[in-house]
Order: sequence, then structure tokens, then C-alpha cells
Amino acid sequence: MKIERLAIIGVGLIGGSLARALKARGMVGEIVGCGRGEENLKKAVELGVIDRYTHDVGEAVEGADMIFLAVPLSAMRDTFAAMKGHIAENAVITDGGSAKGSVIEDCTSVFGEVLPNFVPGHPIAGTENSGVEASFAELYNDRRIILTPVYQTDEAAIARVQAMWRYCGAEVTRMLVVDHDRILAATSHLPHMLAFALVDMLSRLGDTEDIFRYAAGGFRDFTRIASSNPAMWRDICIANSDAVSSLVDSYADEMKELASVIRSRDGDRLLALFNNAKQARDRYVDGLNQQAEPLPTE
Amino acid sequence: MKIERLAIIGVGLIGGSLARALKARGMVGEIVGCGRGEENLKKAVELGVIDRYTHDVGEAVEGADMIFLAVPLSAMRDTFAAMKGHIAENAVITDGGSAKGSVIEDCTSVFGEVLPNFVPGHPIAGTENSGVEASFAELYNDRRIILTPVYQTDEAAIARVQAMWRYCGAEVTRMLVVDHDRILAATSHLPHMLAFALVDMLSRLGDTEDIFRYAAGGFRDFTRIASSNPAMWRDICIANSDAVSSLVDSYADEMKELASVIRSRDGDRLLALFNNAKQARDRYVDGLNQQAEPLPTE
Repeated sequence: MKIERLAIIGVGLIGGSLARALKARGMVGEIVGCGRGEENLKKAVELGVIDRYTHDVGEAVEGADMIFLAVPLSAMRDTFAAMKGHIAENAVITDGGSAKGSVIEDCTSVFGEVLPNFVPGHPIAGTENSGVEASFAELYNDRRIILTPVYQTDEAAIARVQAMWRYCGAEVTRMLVVDHDRILAATSHLPHMLAFALVDMLSRLGDTEDIFRYAAGGFRDFTRIASSNPAMWRDICIANSDAVSSLVDSYADEMKELASVIRSRDGDRLLALFNNAKQARDRYVDGLNQQAEPLPTE
Repeated sequence: MKIERLAIIGVGLIGGSLARALKARGMVGEIVGCGRGEENLKKAVELGVIDRYTHDVGEAVEGADMIFLAVPLSAMRDTFAAMKGHIAENAVITDGGSAKGSVIEDCTSVFGEVLPNFVPGHPIAGTENSGVEASFAELYNDRRIILTPVYQTDEAAIARVQAMWRYCGAEVTRMLVVDHDRILAATSHLPHMLAFALVDMLSRLGDTEDIFRYAAGGFRDFTRIASSNPAMWRDICIANSDAVSSLVDSYADEMKELASVIRSRDGDRLLALFNNAKQARDRYVDGLNQQAEPLPTE
């Protein structure tokens, strides 16, 4: 199951860490990197993360038996188009996009079908840093990888992608595309929207200086994710537009209701709401703390 | 400026930590604790946090030259009422309530005026734990204490409260009552509402188990404050109802707008919003990281 030649399109934190993990375990022959930034790719070679690089996607995937797409969601379609005609017979393709429906649509729009050897995936891992210099072999240790194959997807291809991630120490689960996009909208995309919107709103109040000066540590924890990559989050919102907009809308309704409960000083309803939230959070979230996980961004 | 006798009404994390800090620096003679829970008060004596205790507020404040009210916001009015007629001539009174307008109102409704020797205060400090056993002398080290005296407040009383907190290692600032309540609504009360409402909403979706199972670390950071004390937050919402409800309402409007921007896949507007939030967060909040602060709850 060793990978002979791995092509990584987008050599940043996600792609670079996959390369390092597979190299560390001797599970890969050659790694070809592809991207736009010359500096970053040179650095990747210097660091031994990749063996060589090209700026041409077609050239990069030529002869590769495993292709990993770690490009922004907004670049997926063009990347598929650039691969067309260069994918080897025995190649398996997978990706790291934070939304899955849109990537599958991009694949379909380029190839007229979801390629049977394409296994859509999403590693639930990341840090606050980006670029190949931020990559490290342990990023995927004990992290979850969600694969969202469709009915056309070849089982052997799924097995190879699954094996690749397991070499990296990750736990691999399968999910329906719609479930992935809905669940991630709730647990990741919506919280990011709340944090971005909160900081944006506060930054437009009159006394911003004072507001941020008196912000306590809880505020910093709460808004940490508002420091995430804006372009990446624009892409995610567009890619998962239906699920995210519908949750943001429901949340707005919940907030309107809450405002009126606070305005009417209805202590019983406030207590019921806060109790329910605390119980749910303590029950589900703290249970997960048994798994040690590094700082995530998505 | 040493305190001869300090009465602490409510011997928990906040009151207990003040007692410990003053004792550690030899800045207090006797400390009398007051509260309802026998167990907690016994424990406080055992731990050397207080010297003796009583369940009677009037008895507790008798002969004290400094009185610290660390009771829930909903108990402030009754506490003032129980103190009436027992406050020594030379006594200075201060408190630790998270909202200040309501405490001043409670004082006025009991005494017919804001007592000149009452200095409303709010230590921006806390941990996720409560009770006297969670208290420690260093809690206020390098933390901010906001005092919100009114025009009737005696300058000498303010100076004594200021000195007391400085002995504890805290930085003391003054603010207008309305500014305090508005700024805290923005930086603390609103974020808590968002976190409670998010977890509450997610807990009522169909597939809660899956949703919490796939929640990544960012979600945990973001929702940590939803594990805060529900009764305390009910009190804060009621005490600061106007400022909090109005911000929650504006936030709901912002969310409605955001939902429609996401729905229309308006990448430019999304990017502008996320960029603005990231810049504001990086600029203001990370600047504050130079001050090391423990985990806060309020």
C-alpha cells in the first residue's frame, strides 16, 4: 500500500503536514509539490517536505499514484480542469476541502461525473499558522478525517485514502456529503460566523478602544477564531452557502427571541436556556476533551 | 491604610481571594465572613481565609471598617437592607457585582440615596471554579478593577478601596456607571449570550450526538463560556437588561444581514467583513496578550 509518487497540489500546512507524516513513516516514494508561490515551494524542498516541484498542475499529477488537493475551495474547479488528461490510470485523488458538496460539484462540472477514483475528504485539523513552514508530521495524530465518497466512488480508492490517513495517525470516518456539510456548518462554519460578526460589530461601535481594552480573557478565547484566514472563510461560506446561511438565519431568530426575553427580564426562561446550554456543553464537549487535540482553524 | 476589620458578605472565589490577598500582605486585622452555607464558611475558617463567621449580615458588618459585598446581583438589595442600621461610622463599602447600575439602584432603594461611603466596583477576574476552596491570593494580580463612583461618592472612600485593590496587585481604573455597563455588555455579556444561544440551538437540532462528536477544538474554545454559572448569568441579564438586550438585538440584525450576504454568495462583502474583524481582533486583542491573565468567567 506504499505510495510510489504523491502529488500535492497546494503545499501549505495541510499538504505539507501530510507529506511530512508519510515521509516520516517511509510510506511514500517521491513527493511532487505544486503551487504558485516559488518561495514557498523552494522552502518546501529545502525542508525536505517535497522532493521537487512544478507550477504546472498537469505536470505535477503526471505519473502520480496518489494526488492530494490542498488548494482553496475557490481553486478546486480550475485545479480539476488543469489535471484533466494528465491523471494516471492507477491514480487515486483526494482533497482536504472544508466543504464537500462544492468540491464534488466542481469535479462533476469538469469531468461530467464524480470520478470513481476521487475520494472527497476533510481532515479536521489545523493550527493558526499557515504555509509549509508551519507544517509538521504530527498534525494528524489522533485527529479525525471525514471521507464523503458517493455511490460511484471505487471502494479500492477509498481503501487507499483511508490507509494513507491511518499511516498519519488519524482516525478515518465516512459520512454522507450532505451530513458533512450540515454538521460542519453547525460546529465550525456557524461559530466562525458568530465570532467574525461579533468582532466586526464591536469594531464599529463608538468606543472601540475602550471596548477592546476592557475585554477579558473569555473574550479573547471566544474571538480567537475571528483571526482565521478571511479568504478561506469567504470560500467556505460560498461553497457551503445553503447550510451556513440557513443556520445563521436560525441563529438570528434565536437572538431576536433572546433579546426580547432579556428585555422582559424573564428570569425563569433565561435560567432554563442557560442551564440547557451548560448541560449540553458539559456533557458533550468535555467528554471529547479526553482526545487531546491541537489548536484547530477549521 | 491597613484595614482593621473586613466583613466579606459572600465568601466564594471572589470574596475569598480578596481575603487571602490582603492576609498574605498583612494588610488586614480581622476578617469576618458572612453567607448562607455553613459548610463553605467552616471551610473558609479551616483554610484561614476568614477568622470567624456569622449568617447574619447585620452582625457581620458591625464594627467593620471595610465591607465587601460578593453576593449574587439578585441578592444585593436584600443585603443592603440587612446592613441598614449596622454600618459603622468609619466604614467603607464596596462590591464585586458584574453590573453596576443595578447595584446602585438597589442601594438607593434601600437607603434613599447612594451612600457616600459606598464605592461600586467590579473586579475583572475569575476562574471557571467557584466556592472558597477555589480562591487564591494571586487572583487579582495584574487584573483590572473598575470602580464606578457617582458624584456623591466620598473621595476618601474611593481612595481606601483603590488602595485595598492595589495591595492585591490589581490595576484600578474609574469609569462612569453607564460606560461600565455598556462596555461590559459588549465584551462580556454579549459573548456569553452568543455562546449560550449557540450551544442551546445546536442541542435542539436533530443530530446532536454527531454535531458535538465532530466539533473541533475551536468549537470548544468558542463555547467554553457556555459552561458558566447559569444563575449568575440570569442575574447579569436582568441587572443589565437594557444594554444587553439592545446589543443582542443589534447582533441579531447583523446576523440576518450576514445570512443574506452568504445566501447571495457575495464574496466581496464577506471578505470585507472577515478582513475587518480579523484586523480589529489582531490589533486590539493581541495587543492585550502582553498582560498575562488567568482564565476569566465574567
